[in-house]
Amino acid sequence: MAASNGSVTDLRTTFLEVYAVLKSELLQDPSFEFTDESRQWVDRMLDYNVPGGKLNRGLSVIDSYKLLNEGKSLTESEVFLASALGWCIEWLQAYFLVLDDIMDGSHTRRGQPCWFRVDKVGMIAVNDGVLLRNHIPRILKNHFRGKAYYIDLIELFNEVEFQTASGQMIDLITTLQGEKDLSKYTLPVHRRIVQYKTAYYSFYLPVACALLMAGENLDNHTLVKDVLIEMGTYFQVQDDYLDCFGDPEVIGKIGTDIEDFKCSWLVVQALERANEDQKKMLHENYGKADPACVAKVKALYKDLDLQTVFLEYESKSYEKLISSIEAHSSTAVQAVLKSFLGKIYKRQK
Amino acid sequence: MAASNGSVTDLRTTFLEVYAVLKSELLQDPSFEFTDESRQWVDRMLDYNVPGGKLNRGLSVIDSYKLLNEGKSLTESEVFLASALGWCIEWLQAYFLVLDDIMDGSHTRRGQPCWFRVDKVGMIAVNDGVLLRNHIPRILKNHFRGKAYYIDLIELFNEVEFQTASGQMIDLITTLQGEKDLSKYTLPVHRRIVQYKTAYYSFYLPVACALLMAGENLDNHTLVKDVLIEMGTYFQVQDDYLDCFGDPEVIGKIGTDIEDFKCSWLVVQALERANEDQKKMLHENYGKADPACVAKVKALYKDLDLQTVFLEYESKSYEKLISSIEAHSSTAVQAVLKSFLGKIYKRQK
Repeated sequence: MAASNGSVTDLRTTFLEVYAVLKSELLQDPSFEFTDESRQWVDRMLDYNVPGGKLNRGLSVIDSYKLLNEGKSLTESEVFLASALGWCIEWLQAYFLVLDDIMDGSHTRRGQPCWFRVDKVGMIAVNDGVLLRNHIPRILKNHFRGKAYYIDLIELFNEVEFQTASGQMIDLITTLQGEKDLSKYTLPVHRRIVQYKTAYYSFYLPVACALLMAGENLDNHTLVKDVLIEMGTYFQVQDDYLDCFGDPEVIGKIGTDIEDFKCSWLVVQALERANEDQKKMLHENYGKADPACVAKVKALYKDLDLQTVFLEYESKSYEKLISSIEAHSSTAVQAVLKSFLGKIYKRQK
Repeated sequence: MAASNGSVTDLRTTFLEVYAVLKSELLQDPSFEFTDESRQWVDRMLDYNVPGGKLNRGLSVIDSYKLLNEGKSLTESEVFLASALGWCIEWLQAYFLVLDDIMDGSHTRRGQPCWFRVDKVGMIAVNDGVLLRNHIPRILKNHFRGKAYYIDLIELFNEVEFQTASGQMIDLITTLQGEKDLSKYTLPVHRRIVQYKTAYYSFYLPVACALLMAGENLDNHTLVKDVLIEMGTYFQVQDDYLDCFGDPEVIGKIGTDIEDFKCSWLVVQALERANEDQKKMLHENYGKADPACVAKVKALYKDLDLQTVFLEYESKSYEKLISSIEAHSSTAVQAVLKSFLGKIYKRQK
């Protein structure tokens, strides 16, 4: 997902300028008397955790808003506000990632040590995650308080955060059970985890922000929501697929879903298709760090021809999504949805 | 802090009935498709973490609202709504405690193992903390959406949560620095930690909720805020004092602030009064688990006559608070503030 017009670099630069403004406002928040040390702490914590990702989610708020505006060029204020909402999503993501890394005991994130692994941080990272989350309503209050859609924005972020945390919960509980009983990993469970843990905040939230800014009532856009949730699900299935079959050189990391006992789309599909012997083999080898075990699992995926299963899933999803999108009455909304789909269809990374 | 009328038991029973209603709504939240396992998980997590405290903060919303209503008896709906707000504060507290216990590596809380120490929970407790926090806007949306003060309630909870997390941050950073350099523990730092980490959510928030329900604009009540923050500070100083000089039989726990290197009011006062030799002794013995070290610190507190210093602080605070309260134009508001003060003045536990 990159910006949809030619001036990709410019948009990114503008977006990062807005980050600097938002950060400096947060560091001067009148609701708290910072000490010098605590102001420096938050400054460093934000720079370490918020802007270092691909920024796709944040940038897509601006893209979507532009498309909804049917190509009319945006005022400076509109760009700023769309960017601020984009940053709220990046802040939300940073909050989840900081806490997820603690829960998963991860080591690196975005090419650097996880925040809680940084010297002197440790478990303070839990509170830093909480602070990141608290910054979102501060940003909304600073810039959207007078707007007619202010309350809708607050409720949107609250609902999506609740859905994401709930998705994370079933993921955690399922993995806990799956470690004893792999048969807990089923397609409906996988769908539910992916939909709630990823699709709402990564796909629906950016477009919903743009729709609110454009004066739309979200209750009139259930089709948009359904399409984006479907797209988010498809995106995560790709992610699961690429973790095993993608090119590490292209993706930029080596997948470890098999070692980590993840409820991946691949293992779910394998369980659906495996005979008793193959199931037994999966139970014995899934979730082990030993490369020989991982190789056996991968060999089974190939025997079951999951690559073809994936390609079929991919084409089917695409067709279904395109026909849903084309059923929409507004060409501007169609353009937003097609832009999202175009960025992810057949992606290799 | 107990209910201010005779029917303490009744009020508590009603309050707990409202908890059961709120919980069952959350377990049926239409924004998420629960699995049976995840619904059971949340059910158990809530019962374990939310209602097991003294419930002072929550009950005081109902008490305060009654007093603002000048003794007129409340309708069933008013009792329900005041209770729901009271529970939001208890939920907020549960959220902070679950996460604080993880950060502090604590063992017990309210007479049972900390949630993260329960079998199968572990680091999932981080996400459970997040869920607890997410329940607050769900409760507010379910019961206050149509009210004129809905947006004020949301902003109030957001601001107080931000202040509490910020107070927690300076506490964590100060302790990190204090471990190398005890002289970081000063009176202004102590005041700031206490005010933000405890006073806002424990003292201001319940009364602010009651004021909003009574149709008041919080901008017109800065005096109320100042008095309650001052009272919350006084309450925490008592807490620090009782941790060392209280009767463990009466308090129900054995204090460990000295062992834990806490930025306690006592150590701050000791540092203000100690000569060079005494300071050296403090540096050598503060924050050690060894009972001999703890005894030396306690002996110094006695040598410096901190018990008298405390009693003087206590009387002075009381007088100052009473005269601020009596300067208020509304006798109903005076009654609310005096009720709070009456519950904590000269408390032994």
